[in-house]
Amino acid sequence: MKRIAILGSTGSIGRSTLSVVEAYPERFQVIALAAGRNVEAAFEQARRWKPKLISISTAVDAEILRSRLQTSGIKSIEVVHGPAGTVGVATHPDVDFVVSAIVGVAGLKATYEAVRAGKTVGLANKECLVAAGELITAEARRQGKALLPIDSEHNAVHQCLRGGRMEEVERIWLTASGGPFLYTPKSQFSSITVAQALNHPTWKMGQRITIDSATLMNKGFEVIEACRLFNLPPSRVQVMVHPQSTIHSMVEFVDGSILAQFSVTDMRLPILYALTYPDRIPSAMRFPVMDLRHLEFLPPDVEKFPCLGLAYEAAEAGGAKTVALNAADEVAVDAFLQGRIGFNHIPEVIRDVLSATEAGKLESIEQVLEADSVARELARERVERVGGGPEDSRPVSTAMRVE
Amino acid sequence: MKRIAILGSTGSIGRSTLSVVEAYPERFQVIALAAGRNVEAAFEQARRWKPKLISISTAVDAEILRSRLQTSGIKSIEVVHGPAGTVGVATHPDVDFVVSAIVGVAGLKATYEAVRAGKTVGLANKECLVAAGELITAEARRQGKALLPIDSEHNAVHQCLRGGRMEEVERIWLTASGGPFLYTPKSQFSSITVAQALNHPTWKMGQRITIDSATLMNKGFEVIEACRLFNLPPSRVQVMVHPQSTIHSMVEFVDGSILAQFSVTDMRLPILYALTYPDRIPSAMRFPVMDLRHLEFLPPDVEKFPCLGLAYEAAEAGGAKTVALNAADEVAVDAFLQGRIGFNHIPEVIRDVLSATEAGKLESIEQVLEADSVARELARERVERVGGGPEDSRPVSTAMRVE
Repeated sequence: MKRIAILGSTGSIGRSTLSVVEAYPERFQVIALAAGRNVEAAFEQARRWKPKLISISTAVDAEILRSRLQTSGIKSIEVVHGPAGTVGVATHPDVDFVVSAIVGVAGLKATYEAVRAGKTVGLANKECLVAAGELITAEARRQGKALLPIDSEHNAVHQCLRGGRMEEVERIWLTASGGPFLYTPKSQFSSITVAQALNHPTWKMGQRITIDSATLMNKGFEVIEACRLFNLPPSRVQVMVHPQSTIHSMVEFVDGSILAQFSVTDMRLPILYALTYPDRIPSAMRFPVMDLRHLEFLPPDVEKFPCLGLAYEAAEAGGAKTVALNAADEVAVDAFLQGRIGFNHIPEVIRDVLSATEAGKLESIEQVLEADSVARELARERVERVGGGPEDSRPVSTAMRVE
Repeated sequence: MKRIAILGSTGSIGRSTLSVVEAYPERFQVIALAAGRNVEAAFEQARRWKPKLISISTAVDAEILRSRLQTSGIKSIEVVHGPAGTVGVATHPDVDFVVSAIVGVAGLKATYEAVRAGKTVGLANKECLVAAGELITAEARRQGKALLPIDSEHNAVHQCLRGGRMEEVERIWLTASGGPFLYTPKSQFSSITVAQALNHPTWKMGQRITIDSATLMNKGFEVIEACRLFNLPPSRVQVMVHPQSTIHSMVEFVDGSILAQFSVTDMRLPILYALTYPDRIPSAMRFPVMDLRHLEFLPPDVEKFPCLGLAYEAAEAGGAKTVALNAADEVAVDAFLQGRIGFNHIPEVIRDVLSATEAGKLESIEQVLEADSVARELARERVERVGGGPEDSRPVSTAMRVE
């Protein structure tokens, strides 16, 4: 029986995790849940899963949740709130395995504390590795505990890596769908609308990650994650565009052999893999053979998608640069979604923030969060100056570079 | 330093093995070679590799080889001949690893003796597993030694299987190029010429295996090999047509995850893998990324290619039936190559021989060889009666079934 905590239980990955747990009641037990701002969803999860501990965003929501549970005659569940509540869920002494699925830097501290507490962690939070990858992986190594990737690409790499030893790896190939603008000429990028950018060809995801997929920044983040998770330099993590997203990623070994992993595109599969590793257990879902049909592969166009190049730059520098990359991207994507800057401005804002950020090693989660705030402030300033929305394509990068 | 013997050193796999050995002089040493009928090639190999022992087909050839070595001042090489000579090479006490690459049942006895002598064996001889798979794999298990597949499909499966435990395997997917007649209507099969059948789309191979690829019998043999090698029932070994032959094979695990292996189509890669397993060492050959491009997958047409169904039948029955399958196929393919029967007659001859063969477990290599002779004689009779060459498409299977 594996005893589980979920950080971000009411989000997409959290709900998928609970649906996996539901399918194997004899294998998994839910001990603690950290929900978001949705009290109703948190209440339903508490009632269904009877965790020992549940955390919710605010003190007010916690009070509402407590009284609703009381009214329903459920008295055994402790309700906590806020960042400290999330850390409590992440480090609950009865928990073996923590699923880290809170989006954004909000999940950072709790995930780090889970690792410090010696938990095995399944990682779905991108920021943990992009912004604080060096800290978190170093701590996991110290604890001798696994960090198991839950997103489909790194999960695929993890599986393929079983075909050899780390020192036998030549490079990792992360596959990318290419996003909705794979075949759109760069000259049209300034007039891309929010609706167009949100129309991802293969995966249904949240808004920010969908835009990040359209700019290829999402793949850039994944390059950084792969470098941190598998301890490889950026030059050994490469991207291949594969519009069908059937092959989730590949590993090339020094002897010229390549292993690739694929499965139906359902997040429950990598979640199941992480939860049961090093075992594999039968899935209810079956592989539809003919979904393979035609697979295509092509190199990424880094001219058209400068975000990918910016991510490699940040990956090389590490530390504060990767924090800035993530923070600037979040701010720029928000601004694009609000119609305040054009699609083509996203990489320009990020480039400027990266230039203005000094490289430097970060020694604690607090330093990471501080660097994150600084970068966000810088990004907001850049966004203000770009302004003008989709039709304005002034090149901010030359006009506003910080010397 | 791995000390190697090669059974079939002057054949295609034998020469590829020596080219791998040549690339890593610090890792491999050639101890013994079993050559074929080409004295000149055997002499060159003896001179180049200075094995302790070399075997050649006949006593006359052995005498020629001895005197040529003498004349060249090479006195340290022992020259032997015939089947006993091959067994001597396979069981030489200084040898760790035996590459079994003699085509046909000729390699059976020596390979079995290599396994019995506790050698690790790299298998490129199909008959070892098709005709005597139960015996050879049982003996390898008794010895606690690995049988490492050298053909690209099973080598791929071996690599993918590292991603889980055997009891976690749902099924194996062997990929098939589909051969030159993938898109040829069945109605035209009776007029297929030898030249057409020898024109394989992706691999350059010997004549028999090329015809076997055109009938899909080669894939049928590979199904049987996979069943024996990986100890799986035929229902868990499936075939998928993949015209580009880029993905060499795949393994589907119980959790719905699939691992696939690919590399450039060069036999030196699986040879290198087998020779160095469980390690991987850097290859001089590099993976050309863009060779991926388009990959297609489709199910095999068992109506059009009845040989595949016959192989599954034989795989289910095992023992004498798989011996008969192989023997009948060899005779039928020979007859087709000589213009004595049509392409469409090949499965008919095999079906008749299979029907006439009683299922039965074989207890020794001698019994295998005896069953092989009986099946060949049966197949020759069927071929005689079919006669008439490509234009004659009388259905032998109904006219001549043995009751």
